[in-house]
Amino acid sequence: MNTAQRAARVMARADELASHSALPDGILRAYLTPEQSRVTTIAAAWMREAGLRSWPDAAANVCGRRLVDADDRPALLLGSHLDTVPGAGRYDGILGVLVAIEVADRLRDADLPFALEVVAFGDEEGTRFGTTLLGSRALAGSWNDAWLDLVDADGVTLRDAATTFGIVPEQIGSAARAPGSLVGYLECHIEQGPRLEELDRALGVVTAIAAAERRMISFRGEARHAATPRHLRRDALLGAAEAIVAIERIAREKSCSATVGRIRVEPDAVNVVAGFAEFSLDLRDETASGRDAAWGYIRQELHRIAGDRGLDVDVVSTHVAPEAPMADALRAAVAAGIAATGDATPVELPSVAGHDAMAVADLTGIGMLFVRCAGGISHHADESVREADVAAAIDAFEAAVLHLAQTAV
Amino acid sequence: MNTAQRAARVMARADELASHSALPDGILRAYLTPEQSRVTTIAAAWMREAGLRSWPDAAANVCGRRLVDADDRPALLLGSHLDTVPGAGRYDGILGVLVAIEVADRLRDADLPFALEVVAFGDEEGTRFGTTLLGSRALAGSWNDAWLDLVDADGVTLRDAATTFGIVPEQIGSAARAPGSLVGYLECHIEQGPRLEELDRALGVVTAIAAAERRMISFRGEARHAATPRHLRRDALLGAAEAIVAIERIAREKSCSATVGRIRVEPDAVNVVAGFAEFSLDLRDETASGRDAAWGYIRQELHRIAGDRGLDVDVVSTHVAPEAPMADALRAAVAAGIAATGDATPVELPSVAGHDAMAVADLTGIGMLFVRCAGGISHHADESVREADVAAAIDAFEAAVLHLAQTAV
Repeated sequence: MNTAQRAARVMARADELASHSALPDGILRAYLTPEQSRVTTIAAAWMREAGLRSWPDAAANVCGRRLVDADDRPALLLGSHLDTVPGAGRYDGILGVLVAIEVADRLRDADLPFALEVVAFGDEEGTRFGTTLLGSRALAGSWNDAWLDLVDADGVTLRDAATTFGIVPEQIGSAARAPGSLVGYLECHIEQGPRLEELDRALGVVTAIAAAERRMISFRGEARHAATPRHLRRDALLGAAEAIVAIERIAREKSCSATVGRIRVEPDAVNVVAGFAEFSLDLRDETASGRDAAWGYIRQELHRIAGDRGLDVDVVSTHVAPEAPMADALRAAVAAGIAATGDATPVELPSVAGHDAMAVADLTGIGMLFVRCAGGISHHADESVREADVAAAIDAFEAAVLHLAQTAV
Repeated sequence: MNTAQRAARVMARADELASHSALPDGILRAYLTPEQSRVTTIAAAWMREAGLRSWPDAAANVCGRRLVDADDRPALLLGSHLDTVPGAGRYDGILGVLVAIEVADRLRDADLPFALEVVAFGDEEGTRFGTTLLGSRALAGSWNDAWLDLVDADGVTLRDAATTFGIVPEQIGSAARAPGSLVGYLECHIEQGPRLEELDRALGVVTAIAAAERRMISFRGEARHAATPRHLRRDALLGAAEAIVAIERIAREKSCSATVGRIRVEPDAVNVVAGFAEFSLDLRDETASGRDAAWGYIRQELHRIAGDRGLDVDVVSTHVAPEAPMADALRAAVAAGIAATGDATPVELPSVAGHDAMAVADLTGIGMLFVRCAGGISHHADESVREADVAAAIDAFEAAVLHLAQTAV
């Protein structure tokens, strides 16, 4: 089977997986659902066809390992996730699983200095229970049993959902791989950004996954009648509006990513000046220090606005993730893999979005290969990749594994 | 009884009315409630003490007319309202009713070229059914029977509330006074603003009640993952934030009143760029043409922002009220009344807030006297007036009636 045929098979398999959804219109596959169960069964069958021994792990991830690999040999792990956000595209996560299976199939009899495994994680997006990376964190050994009490939108606990799915809630943590059992982790993923398209490249080497922090920011002023003159107002919504505009400017100046996606005000009445306004801030940068430097400017601006407008400001941090840099050897392997496809000077770029690799980095070195996607669009039905780029990704990902095999000896 | 004693009585009566509330802490009296029934009975008794024949009208307003006035004589009407917003103060509306009763008491035997009446309206604030000025619009002949289907927060229709209160829903409209039955309407009211306090004056002549328009403004962009680079975003919340800041600037430049009190976004998720944002605008100016001119600048800015950010903008008008100018003769009478208290050049100022006089203007000429209040605070428990100012208001309001009696003959 040549590379073009493999790329065509990946596209067809992505279409097939897209048909398994909780939505009549659009794609949605969340953790521990019947849809996950169906795609898990399908992916396990594809792994077996690729010469892998396949098993579901205790966290409802699907794993596969080459039949030729001895049980005690440390493994190079290739993978990504099969779960989706609501209204998703066909490739975010899925492409990485399908490309990994193709590469394992090609290398089923190769003489490698490590075992070769594939994993399809059951939860990366956090769609159902709010907390992300549940599958990959279980594998990486950072599972927390407190998450069993997380509830979905219907009030179902993760504990009950696990039981219904057919796994044992109290044993999810046993999906953890032993330290030393892996030599590294490689993930192929669509870019979810426009850089490769703008640079006219099919593939790119990821340098690091961005550091992220989420905060809830609030201003408190005074609710007053709409007849109140301007100089007596302490308008919390005007403070928030000024801050949101300032955050955009600071993100541009500091070249980081900032998103204000939520806002609410009190009393939320058409003829009353808002006495309270609260909004979210999702701040990301290639490094935690860059992210924190940008936050320093934002915080300064929040206090200036509060001072100018007679408001009190309050900030609560709700989520922090440090940057996840790629391991040198794995990053070099991905670069060598891309070079092997004819792109002598591969583009290097950070990932603004989070990935399973962030979680796996707790356990072993990580490397990531990005594939160009149309218009930078992701988490949307219009998510699109070119079949020729998928072919290039298969070749590059295989070459990355072989490069690692040569240099790791 | 001298003026100081009358002012003390007004303060004591305001305190007494404040004890009739639907809230254990704070003042709330809404239309067609037991609280309204209690203060109606009390106000009717005070009117009778003041030498007025008193009756409840078909819309649950309390009316009083001098015993000396023949039934067919056109009347000068003095009044305001007894209903309140939630968490109200003791004087908004109430002060005007109490001052009117004092003036009628003083003039109970005066030889006037018109009859003299007092009215205490049952609904100005619109607290219970959302629609304002129900009592004054019924008296003015602009009652709409469709309002019988308005529902309160508990799902009770105005129709059922009227029946429970003891009035006949289908007869509320019969509270309308005949055209020609009134020679004018005078209202005394706290300023609900800081101008008089800043100018160190107890009283002011209202020039007009501001023209108002309320709109819901929305921007539609595209919901995208927070990893989306800036130049690919069409962020509806950023559009709204920029617009809210611009609206404040335009209101300052054009000296009109603008309030954005409500906002909501979709999908309202911390890691998703907002694809939709909707906010309210309450715009007021001394004249409809001034209000509309300011709106012209705001609309231009909305379209500029939409163009710059690749958003669609939509505007829906939800409420329009033209300015209500004072009638020349009644405005002159109020000015003469204030002058009679020793303030030779009375301050003239517009009312940004709406009043019963707006509704009564459909039927007869209106005039308004403003009384200084502390810090411009209203619709709040801290609403406060000085007893000495109330005394001045009683004298000025009486002098205004007498001035009108001299000039109207």
